[in-house]
Amino acid sequence: MPKLRLHTFAMSLDGYGAGVDQDLEHPLGIGGRLLHEWAFETATFGGSGTGIDDDFAARGEVDIGATIMGRNMFGPIRGEWGDDRWRGWWGDNPPYHHDVFVLTHFPHEPIEMDGGTTFHFTDHDIETVLKRAFDAAGGLDVRLGGGVSTVRQYWRAGLIDEAHIPIVPVLLGRGERVFDDLGDALDDYEVAEVVSSPAVTHVRIVKRG
Amino acid sequence: MPKLRLHTFAMSLDGYGAGVDQDLEHPLGIGGRLLHEWAFETATFGGSGTGIDDDFAARGEVDIGATIMGRNMFGPIRGEWGDDRWRGWWGDNPPYHHDVFVLTHFPHEPIEMDGGTTFHFTDHDIETVLKRAFDAAGGLDVRLGGGVSTVRQYWRAGLIDEAHIPIVPVLLGRGERVFDDLGDALDDYEVAEVVSSPAVTHVRIVKRG
Repeated sequence: MPKLRLHTFAMSLDGYGAGVDQDLEHPLGIGGRLLHEWAFETATFGGSGTGIDDDFAARGEVDIGATIMGRNMFGPIRGEWGDDRWRGWWGDNPPYHHDVFVLTHFPHEPIEMDGGTTFHFTDHDIETVLKRAFDAAGGLDVRLGGGVSTVRQYWRAGLIDEAHIPIVPVLLGRGERVFDDLGDALDDYEVAEVVSSPAVTHVRIVKRG
Repeated sequence: MPKLRLHTFAMSLDGYGAGVDQDLEHPLGIGGRLLHEWAFETATFGGSGTGIDDDFAARGEVDIGATIMGRNMFGPIRGEWGDDRWRGWWGDNPPYHHDVFVLTHFPHEPIEMDGGTTFHFTDHDIETVLKRAFDAAGGLDVRLGGGVSTVRQYWRAGLIDEAHIPIVPVLLGRGERVFDDLGDALDDYEVAEVVSSPAVTHVRIVKRG
């Protein structure tokens, strides 16, 4: 069975998955970049680092046929799309190379990018979007991209099959919490793996079979 | 300068420092025991284990001259003390061997135990209690015992000098959060050390100098 997988979704020691006040200059929110500096060092994310951190980062690229993300991860624009020139944070050839489903209440035509990535915009419920993504993935897994509120929605519904959460040794003090407002959903999950590098502690959480 | 130190204050992956529904059968709250099983394996806490976990646990015993704790850590009784026979969870000879200050709004005579431990009950504000504890410690440090709400009060006031938080790879899903309702207090703290054993990830947080 294809899975819904979350990868390299970094969390601060005090539980935040993103900073506050995301905007064009701070795509990860203020403070949020601290969560990802280790990742930018890895070969997978454009650096040169190999080893534990890169191994975990690279797993997120394997056997993925479609991606789901919240609109805040697609861009800083809120409300209506306006002049409609925004095409994501990633340039002309985004690193997806498959169908990406962006959750939004505001309609938008699909955007076909170079390299096989097409952004689809949908206001369907999260289960329907997941079905569309599984169809698009053609038997491969679906990756859940983020941000925090999208992750929490899928987690609360018990739809995430496995999650890789790197715990980063910083204290943000404010932001969006990963493990919040999940009801009893976590009762169905367990920690399957914990591996520390000098930079972060990688935790893999899986849904009980 | 003597310090206020927090040691072996375990937290779940999802940020909880204690479970819910603490009572006589569940002194750590339901689920809370999962946070401490690794510690009970260490020589310091009555097991036989040595190594990283025991090293960190043992640090909490060094140069401590007094302890502060909330009343929930002293016992399961809420409200008035009632028949007054409760003398703590630890038997006739508690492992403190110094003055222990228990925060409570309900008056209670001091309880002198075997081995040099005396429990003092106080409804003073937390700063005043800390001064009394420093006086009682006679130049040694003061240990903050817990539980979560006591820790948060001292943290919010910026009075904790260093904290050892073992992150335990379990998901509790509910309970009392360690890093919650701290205002901007965490801005003054930084992560000084992260060391993982096979069981837990030990994090040491210090107040910036």
